[in-house]
Amino acid sequence: MTDFARTRKLFDLPEGVIYLDGNSLGPLPAAAVARVRDMMVGEWGVELIRGWNSAGWYDQPRRVGDRVARLIGAAPGTVVMGDTLSIKVFQALSAALDLNPDRRVVLSDSGNFPSDLYIAQGLLASLGRGHELRIVEPEAVGAAIDETVAVTLITEVDYRTGRRHDMKAITARAHEAGAIAVWDLAHSAGAVDVDLAGADADFAVGCTYKYLNGGPGAPAFIYVAPRHADRARPALAGWMGHERPFAFDLDYRPAPGIERMRVGTPPVIALTALEAALDVWDGVDMADVRRRSMELGQRFIDGVEAACPGLELASPRDPALRGSQVSFRHPHAYAVMQALIARGVIGDFRAPDAMRFGFAPLYVSTGDVDAAVSILAHILADGLWDRPDYHRKAAVT
Amino acid sequence: MTDFARTRKLFDLPEGVIYLDGNSLGPLPAAAVARVRDMMVGEWGVELIRGWNSAGWYDQPRRVGDRVARLIGAAPGTVVMGDTLSIKVFQALSAALDLNPDRRVVLSDSGNFPSDLYIAQGLLASLGRGHELRIVEPEAVGAAIDETVAVTLITEVDYRTGRRHDMKAITARAHEAGAIAVWDLAHSAGAVDVDLAGADADFAVGCTYKYLNGGPGAPAFIYVAPRHADRARPALAGWMGHERPFAFDLDYRPAPGIERMRVGTPPVIALTALEAALDVWDGVDMADVRRRSMELGQRFIDGVEAACPGLELASPRDPALRGSQVSFRHPHAYAVMQALIARGVIGDFRAPDAMRFGFAPLYVSTGDVDAAVSILAHILADGLWDRPDYHRKAAVT
Repeated sequence: MTDFARTRKLFDLPEGVIYLDGNSLGPLPAAAVARVRDMMVGEWGVELIRGWNSAGWYDQPRRVGDRVARLIGAAPGTVVMGDTLSIKVFQALSAALDLNPDRRVVLSDSGNFPSDLYIAQGLLASLGRGHELRIVEPEAVGAAIDETVAVTLITEVDYRTGRRHDMKAITARAHEAGAIAVWDLAHSAGAVDVDLAGADADFAVGCTYKYLNGGPGAPAFIYVAPRHADRARPALAGWMGHERPFAFDLDYRPAPGIERMRVGTPPVIALTALEAALDVWDGVDMADVRRRSMELGQRFIDGVEAACPGLELASPRDPALRGSQVSFRHPHAYAVMQALIARGVIGDFRAPDAMRFGFAPLYVSTGDVDAAVSILAHILADGLWDRPDYHRKAAVT
Repeated sequence: MTDFARTRKLFDLPEGVIYLDGNSLGPLPAAAVARVRDMMVGEWGVELIRGWNSAGWYDQPRRVGDRVARLIGAAPGTVVMGDTLSIKVFQALSAALDLNPDRRVVLSDSGNFPSDLYIAQGLLASLGRGHELRIVEPEAVGAAIDETVAVTLITEVDYRTGRRHDMKAITARAHEAGAIAVWDLAHSAGAVDVDLAGADADFAVGCTYKYLNGGPGAPAFIYVAPRHADRARPALAGWMGHERPFAFDLDYRPAPGIERMRVGTPPVIALTALEAALDVWDGVDMADVRRRSMELGQRFIDGVEAACPGLELASPRDPALRGSQVSFRHPHAYAVMQALIARGVIGDFRAPDAMRFGFAPLYVSTGDVDAAVSILAHILADGLWDRPDYHRKAAVT
């Protein structure tokens, strides 16, 4: 059994804060500070350019990728780190379309994170070959997969509601219809028990600044199923994905396997912070994380529904159909969230009317959940949210 | 006059090292360590998700971009940070092609950094519209610009020889022929007196881990001329480049101006290290840097040619035609460089037979240059490079 009392001690959470926004930005793993300092002073400072060999920087995207792979049901050697999630969506979608050149439909849903849709729109417009981005309701994805669909581009867990797609069933349906399945694991990696290999996913991408706690803007990852890895054509054909980057040939030849999904020079400082964050996951079983996060989420729902009239559950009621996040609707959700934050309970707001609460078992306890419920109940009962300053929206909400 | 004795003290160079590889990876600015720690502990650790507003993370790509802009002759509001140089090449080339839709030739040269060529190859193959990447010798670029050329994609300073293109003349020639000029400033930014506005460049991109000392894999930058900024179409249409990222609309609408070249969530830790590195540039005049780097390079060439028979200058002899780097050829360049590194003189090797030496005035003195020449002369005179271990190539060379 995973010891969550132990993992909680590995984070430096500010005194008095109940942090329920790890679905947006994970907290600071205490060890990351010294690790980054050691990399900067002892590797960059001392080794200088030699660090690419002597400190293992060059292999870092693969080395870190293997550690992420374990958490998402992927084999070693199938995941590589780099860039941002939006860039990785572009890479995966582009390679997937290339593997299915006779079809013209990319199927996604209205619960996908908008950046995935924007990236698809940008890519399809660039291609100029009459591709269509078809967006259906989340519940309609399975039925909408037909023989016109080239690629399904789906985020497993809905960023607004926490609703979780059935990755295995949708992937099977996609394959049955001759489509390629690309999965975005932004709200899955480190949150739910993803099984990419078991679901037979074709491509997957994700970020590491949410449940994996890599820090703001931490590098993304991409997974390519071994059956595609040697034939996926990289549209972003950068030198680090070349078969022999340091031969400086004038012609691009993709590296074998997942390496070809590398693009430019890897972000070593950021990857080092992420490596420290991944140490927290050593000895953590994703099945335990999933079980615990369902318990925490259910406890929150039960508590809120008993104590907070006026809130409407926006997430699926069945824990098996949710990710690690619970959303409630309120007509003044933004102001209520400001009142919560002012009292140390940090969740976030998503337009137009949702409050999101993430339950990351690595550092959220049942005591946190109960306290958050009490504070929310007090805010609502006494109308504490109705202050002018709580209605003034910040630039980034 | 810039005080280079002052700037030198701002770097933590290891005792006994003469660092002539800032053209590959700049050294650690001493202040960056505490800055990154403060960001991690005081911003990420304390502010958590609120840091996007309270600590100014959201605006960081623009704020840092403005500081880079000053060093490359660009107006405030025309440069934004993010991703890697290869990604920025893709963005710039893609947008440039889109502005010149009736032509099919991308003109580059064989001295361009291979990743730029690979990215172009990947992009053109994706487009599938019969574009051609035409690669000529560096000296032939001007004459090769004709009415078929859609875009010139040129790295201003050649990574092998240090040869510097005439940006102003080539850009004028490109415009005369109806082409769009994209410039890669990888070996220019912080090294030579770039004047993007004065040269009337259309797009420019660059990295910050070389002369700008941002650290291994530090974020890249992109410049878009104001006349194109509101109509350049982002192929990498990420949410941070959206007109209203936090409205979470399903349709992409590019932000006005340079903001549309943002893609995903910015790498805050890496940008923070870079901000500290850019502090070193406060009070530094690029004209002084250029003058000083020409002096240092010339002193090195004079010294080597007087004391080191058997080396052949691979860089232009006229300092005005060089960047901040000098290359020499030797049949056993790799081994000679290993012998130099073993004696504390760090330059680098580029296949097949070049030794590169970068002269960054911020931390390289005339004393360093003279000492490097002496050590190189000793190695060659006594054949100290001819040891088996100096011939064994590392993974990354």
